Amino acid sequence: MAEGLRMIPFWEVNVMSEKKKYLYLFSEGNRDMKEILGGKGANLAEMTNIGMPVPQGFTISTEACTQYYHDGRKINDEILSDIYEYIEKMEQITGKQFGNVENPLLVSVRSGARASMPGMMDTILNLGLNDEVVVGLAKRTNNERFAYDSYRRFVQMFSDVVMELSKSDFEEIIDEMKAEKGVKLDTELSADDMKELVAKFKALYKEKMGKDFPSDPKEQLIEAVKAVFRSWDNPRADVYRRMHEIPYDWGTAVNVQAMVFGNGGDTSGTGVAFTRNPATGEKALFGEYLINAQGEDVVAGIRTPSPISHLEQQMPEVYHQFVDIANKLEQHYKDMQDMEFTIEDGKLYMLQTRNGKRTAEAALKIAVDLVDEGMIDRKEAVLRVDPKQLDSLLHPQFDPDALKAATPIGRGLAASPGAACGQVVFTAQDAQNAVQSGEMKKVILVRLETSPEDIEGMQVAQGILTVRGGMTSHAAVVARGMGTCCVSGCGEIVVDYPNRCFTLDGKCYKQGDWISIDGSTGKIYGEAIPTTKAGTSEHFQRFMRWADEAREMMVFANADNPTDAQQAVEFGAQGIGLCRTEHMFFEADRIRAVREMIVARDKEGREKALAKILPYQQGDFEAMYKVMGERPMTIRYLDPPLHEFLPTKDEEVADLAKELEVDAVQLKNVIRSLKEINPMMGHRGCRLAVSYPEIAEMQTKAVINAAINVTRETGMKIEPHIMIPLVGDVHELKFVKDIVVRTADKLLADAGMEMHYQVGTMIEIPRAALTADEIAPEADFFSFGTNDLTQLTFGFSRDDTGKFLSYYYKNKIYESDPFAHLDRNGVGKLVAMTARLGREAKPEIGLGVCGEHGGDPSSVEFFQKVGLDYVSCSPYRVPIARLAAAQAAIRFPRK
Amino acid sequence: MAEGLRMIPFWEVNVMSEKKKYLYLFSEGNRDMKEILGGKGANLAEMTNIGMPVPQGFTISTEACTQYYHDGRKINDEILSDIYEYIEKMEQITGKQFGNVENPLLVSVRSGARASMPGMMDTILNLGLNDEVVVGLAKRTNNERFAYDSYRRFVQMFSDVVMELSKSDFEEIIDEMKAEKGVKLDTELSADDMKELVAKFKALYKEKMGKDFPSDPKEQLIEAVKAVFRSWDNPRADVYRRMHEIPYDWGTAVNVQAMVFGNGGDTSGTGVAFTRNPATGEKALFGEYLINAQGEDVVAGIRTPSPISHLEQQMPEVYHQFVDIANKLEQHYKDMQDMEFTIEDGKLYMLQTRNGKRTAEAALKIAVDLVDEGMIDRKEAVLRVDPKQLDSLLHPQFDPDALKAATPIGRGLAASPGAACGQVVFTAQDAQNAVQSGEMKKVILVRLETSPEDIEGMQVAQGILTVRGGMTSHAAVVARGMGTCCVSGCGEIVVDYPNRCFTLDGKCYKQGDWISIDGSTGKIYGEAIPTTKAGTSEHFQRFMRWADEAREMMVFANADNPTDAQQAVEFGAQGIGLCRTEHMFFEADRIRAVREMIVARDKEGREKALAKILPYQQGDFEAMYKVMGERPMTIRYLDPPLHEFLPTKDEEVADLAKELEVDAVQLKNVIRSLKEINPMMGHRGCRLAVSYPEIAEMQTKAVINAAINVTRETGMKIEPHIMIPLVGDVHELKFVKDIVVRTADKLLADAGMEMHYQVGTMIEIPRAALTADEIAPEADFFSFGTNDLTQLTFGFSRDDTGKFLSYYYKNKIYESDPFAHLDRNGVGKLVAMTARLGREAKPEIGLGVCGEHGGDPSSVEFFQKVGLDYVSCSPYRVPIARLAAAQAAIRFPRK
Repeated sequence: MAEGLRMIPFWEVNVMSEKKKYLYLFSEGNRDMKEILGGKGANLAEMTNIGMPVPQGFTISTEACTQYYHDGRKINDEILSDIYEYIEKMEQITGKQFGNVENPLLVSVRSGARASMPGMMDTILNLGLNDEVVVGLAKRTNNERFAYDSYRRFVQMFSDVVMELSKSDFEEIIDEMKAEKGVKLDTELSADDMKELVAKFKALYKEKMGKDFPSDPKEQLIEAVKAVFRSWDNPRADVYRRMHEIPYDWGTAVNVQAMVFGNGGDTSGTGVAFTRNPATGEKALFGEYLINAQGEDVVAGIRTPSPISHLEQQMPEVYHQFVDIANKLEQHYKDMQDMEFTIEDGKLYMLQTRNGKRTAEAALKIAVDLVDEGMIDRKEAVLRVDPKQLDSLLHPQFDPDALKAATPIGRGLAASPGAACGQVVFTAQDAQNAVQSGEMKKVILVRLETSPEDIEGMQVAQGILTVRGGMTSHAAVVARGMGTCCVSGCGEIVVDYPNRCFTLDGKCYKQGDWISIDGSTGKIYGEAIPTTKAGTSEHFQRFMRWADEAREMMVFANADNPTDAQQAVEFGAQGIGLCRTEHMFFEADRIRAVREMIVARDKEGREKALAKILPYQQGDFEAMYKVMGERPMTIRYLDPPLHEFLPTKDEEVADLAKELEVDAVQLKNVIRSLKEINPMMGHRGCRLAVSYPEIAEMQTKAVINAAINVTRETGMKIEPHIMIPLVGDVHELKFVKDIVVRTADKLLADAGMEMHYQVGTMIEIPRAALTADEIAPEADFFSFGTNDLTQLTFGFSRDDTGKFLSYYYKNKIYESDPFAHLDRNGVGKLVAMTARLGREAKPEIGLGVCGEHGGDPSSVEFFQKVGLDYVSCSPYRVPIARLAAAQAAIRFPRK
Repeated sequence: MAEGLRMIPFWEVNVMSEKKKYLYLFSEGNRDMKEILGGKGANLAEMTNIGMPVPQGFTISTEACTQYYHDGRKINDEILSDIYEYIEKMEQITGKQFGNVENPLLVSVRSGARASMPGMMDTILNLGLNDEVVVGLAKRTNNERFAYDSYRRFVQMFSDVVMELSKSDFEEIIDEMKAEKGVKLDTELSADDMKELVAKFKALYKEKMGKDFPSDPKEQLIEAVKAVFRSWDNPRADVYRRMHEIPYDWGTAVNVQAMVFGNGGDTSGTGVAFTRNPATGEKALFGEYLINAQGEDVVAGIRTPSPISHLEQQMPEVYHQFVDIANKLEQHYKDMQDMEFTIEDGKLYMLQTRNGKRTAEAALKIAVDLVDEGMIDRKEAVLRVDPKQLDSLLHPQFDPDALKAATPIGRGLAASPGAACGQVVFTAQDAQNAVQSGEMKKVILVRLETSPEDIEGMQVAQGILTVRGGMTSHAAVVARGMGTCCVSGCGEIVVDYPNRCFTLDGKCYKQGDWISIDGSTGKIYGEAIPTTKAGTSEHFQRFMRWADEAREMMVFANADNPTDAQQAVEFGAQGIGLCRTEHMFFEADRIRAVREMIVARDKEGREKALAKILPYQQGDFEAMYKVMGERPMTIRYLDPPLHEFLPTKDEEVADLAKELEVDAVQLKNVIRSLKEINPMMGHRGCRLAVSYPEIAEMQTKAVINAAINVTRETGMKIEPHIMIPLVGDVHELKFVKDIVVRTADKLLADAGMEMHYQVGTMIEIPRAALTADEIAPEADFFSFGTNDLTQLTFGFSRDDTGKFLSYYYKNKIYESDPFAHLDRNGVGKLVAMTARLGREAKPEIGLGVCGEHGGDPSSVEFFQKVGLDYVSCSPYRVPIARLAAAQAAIRFPRK
């Protein structure tokens, strides 16, 4: 044994290896421990630290959750004994005891992931109650009705959330009892009614589960913790995570907190509030509360709550204390806070605070206001708005004239802004089916209330209309997050699910009828009102200027016609990164010539047909140059396989044959000969120009002539950017480039004009990425076609993934759609390699992206990191890309 | 300016920069300068150095050729003046002068690339003749007929080769004259006839070219040099280069050599000879010559030459001198030499020597003999045989019994070994058309003689039969190179091209009739004789043992059934690298169950059908294990899209519906729903197992049960290798591997048996290569599926390249088919990256290749370089792969 090394006996090793800490009292954590404690847990700890009135408890860390999955969905003995230990600590702190009839500890159990996942995770309240404890609670509070109300709530919630029994079975029992007693509200039920409910619930539980409802509070707690862990993996959570790019391996924490009761009578209550208006951003306390209720009542939207301002009259002291706390929290977190509170017998408790979700409009106003108030600087402000949210600003509004002529049939809460118009459907499934089958193009989902199961249906809907629930109801929160228009809480609506219709303002609206809703005003219209494009506010302009100041990458748009180009410029595009010329080929006035070109038997025939297309194409480019001015415009040469331009049905072929004056049988043979087994990997892109150089020649004529004409007409300095698609080998690029240069130089010489032009290439074939060092010397720029690059790198065609991608999500093989968010490990490696090889071979080479990923914030961040010069995306995503690029530059500056 | 640095005035810079050397006298070069001088030039220089009788001259380097292309197909002034300078040097050396009537310098101009390209490049003889010089030559040689014969040859050759006039126009004139004079052979024409021919040829030239035949020898030379350069780029050269993987950018050298004349009378002649028999390898001078002829006459096969041994009687002194030289050359080069010589007026001149092309049989014998003779060592011997050549040994021979019953209808020269049987076609184009259209599966190409234009037709033919030409004729040389059976010089055949038939032995054979030829005996049969698989000689076994000693990679075979597995073992395969299970699915007795599985609506239905397939599949594996013994066998799980197993025609669908007792319309819908837009990138490979884990489960049962049964039965130690196809993400592999492990471990536990098994993955998706470090920890081995990897890396589907690949060759974008030879710059980069990342993550991981490239020598070399453990290829290519791997190991040893 080497000198100086001491052998460590195994028992010492055991002692020395530090035991992993899985549990934390609220007093042990702080706001920076979100990764371990989750958002809710970290903020409960922080509030505890700064002396807020927080019912105490502990947090079971996210690491315990991942360990649970690692152990095959089991809580291991170590963590189990830790939990028991922390229950004891909690009992000491609160002076109450689990199962103690005199002084029972009752707790809430809540999930809390790193990122807020509203409605996705499950909560259990009043845990610790059993037949003995409830008696003690009734005695201690001198409120039997409250005790049994709490108990029946607990039994119901535990059965539903923990044991996954059907919620509606329990609701049916309540409804039966209310009918029997002739009352309308839960609050009208008596203590004895509640007792009876508990008995009936427990009987139902036993019937369904085959065993008694668990009476041991510790057993209840462990089951509840497991249920929270389990819920991390439910399909709704999967959908939410995929939508919000939350990694599966993060896991969720569990917060166990001493219960305080808002349902103990008229000096108790519960509510939620925001320090600023989450819909408008207005600086004023905004929220709602219910007296004699538990938190779930507010969020679920079963009773319609009162605005927070009413609390000032009802409980002035509590109200002022709350306002004070709210201000302190906002100052502390330097952001708008979303808080939950409970008033127990006149005493205020804070149950949660977090940075509040908000509409895009509100996000902008709050960010700008916080700068003006001196709380944050501009860069911080830029980071405060989720780029994806801007979408909602850019969404349609009602056409003002059409709106004038329309009369509302009702009004609900303006829960999520924007206007929508669509056909009525009543279930999330119907919404999905109708849209996916193409039966309806736009739907409005009408529900009593929404629940997490409805997410996918909500995603496809233009708008959401609910009967119950306030601004913080599930429907409202989720719709704002999605940027989908929502009107909530329109209690006048009578929904008849079985007959698929609703009645409002005395009229019946059936499934398929058209209605319109305005999520900014809450108005509902019994007709289709055309919508117009979105407008943007003054805050928006100011905010986006800050973003542009911070940005390092340019943002271009993909646009194929002057209208789109104009829209792109209005949204702040600095150029066009992708103008697809084939879209121009499809237009009715030229498709004939295109088809003539395709079926031509020789070069001469093709050239004749191309000569007919030239003036159209040149005219298109001239119009676009006029819109774009001196901004760069990148024109991609013909890309799709030629058969896409030809008809396939026999009658159409016959018509075309007549039109082109060729034999129909012969034409059919031509069309058949163009058919490909894998057209995505077939005769397309630059392969067309290699086979038929005359196509590239014609397109060059159109580009250069258009530039010459517009230069002459306007005096602008135009530099055409010509982009060759589907290059996989430098010789392909060189071949097509030679045609371009030869043609362009001759035209310019003939015109006696000096004009710079660039010839670049798409990088969308893996081989192009791998040989970027060979290609770069021939290219003025590279533009990543990340759609095709993703297809080829993954080896699946976007058109065919439908058959198996759902299995991939189900089996956790993919967490997100690689066509939506750039796959960094695979495709991203190619992008980074290309950028490096390209720059090494030609330092001045331009690097950009023109695939769909150019408008996706997480992908944009990656492009910033690997040093691209620009991203290009559809015009409506330009503001999103601008903001995403700004945030990426702030987070990952190049200098 | 830094001290010690001296400013260099620009005129000095000019002087100091060394002028590039483009030309070399034969005395300036040597055998090691092939890159610059080409093979022919380097060997002419070497022979000059060692004192052989070589007519002197100079070589224009390959760099001059690439400069010519670089300058836009122009010889620049610098090179031009160099050529003039070297003409002067040559005039000094030879004491003759260009255009000097008294003592004219006449030269041959020959191409000479680095690698020999027989028949691909063009030669001009007798250059320097004009109307004046010819008179002087006649006077000087006192042989007017010879002078004008040389002149008419020159005019014809220059017109054809340099000016690209039609050769047949000139031949027509000769034929007319022969008919007119009533003679049969050129040699029977008189001096005046020759004069008349010259006049007629020059008139034809003027008519076609619109100007006089050039009389200035220097102008003739420059045009000839340009023609050689140009010929580097002709389509035949392209085809040859692609076939032999010769890079386009090598270029060709040009050799300008003083003429010696074999056509000056009966003491002159010309011939070609090999130091050993190029067909059998027998150690004996082998060759042929023609008296009173120029080299082209021998090679073109227009007159049938005499065997070299006859020269001993005819010119004993010359013969012995030649034998002496031949021996010296073989000793010098330590290899069998292929020599060209000319006898001018009784004096021997060597015009060329090179390592002779030979049949595979001869190559093996020569290599083995040279070792036995102590001339080379075993490793050198292993390097001496082109692996691709082994193909010919492995080609079919006639079935001996069938052959006994057959009577030959004629006999030609045994020009290239092997037996062939096919339908008669008369043009290369017909051969291509018939085979490509599927009209005929096997064709025998019957020609008067072949020419370089015929190469593509020769490639598709089973065998080649020619009327004219010897063992060194174009047909013979090319066929040997291709390993295609060839019988040449069967003069009894009368071909009637216009009527597409030939007469032999009094019988007429029409296009489409079946004949058989034996390239090892020269026999021709007027019927189809079945062929059997090839046998291998004793040399082969000995030689292959040496190869195996040198080899570092293992060689496996791709085999899907016991017969192929048996063949693979006989050819020396050390295991099976790819057993495709889907081929087993297609067999008639199980396809019904496969289809039942596919159309099943749920897991239960699928499992029921899979249970029916299981015994078949298990039986297949048992049979294969028995053949393979303890050699590794890698079984790939189901790979193709399911629709490949279903019928498409309406009647077939109806039949299937009846068979499966399902509704035909419903079945049609199922089939339609399985249709994919890009099936190559669709629902296949491991995506099937992810969607339907029960398939992987059934296959695992089949593999493991088979291994258990065979182990029990035979006591062999079997280690199944299970391979998951089309993996692109580690989670895919993990998911399927989990199924395999779970299923296998249970079976083994139930059987109470210990058995190691491996689970590995194909690397055929670019993303798998890019993330090999993530995948490696889950994989026991990686096997590169280079076919799919090539498709996806290039972004084109093998099935659809037909439409554009010809344009790619024409435009020099691709020099070879990436499906035949691994693309090192692109696909190879991914392979190397995978090997590196995989080994870094898991040093013990197995690395192999099972795509078609596994049997391609140039690809095998690459796999040796990047450190793979094995290659796997079709059984018939196993010996080729063994030899290629041995050569690669000798050239690029790992230790």
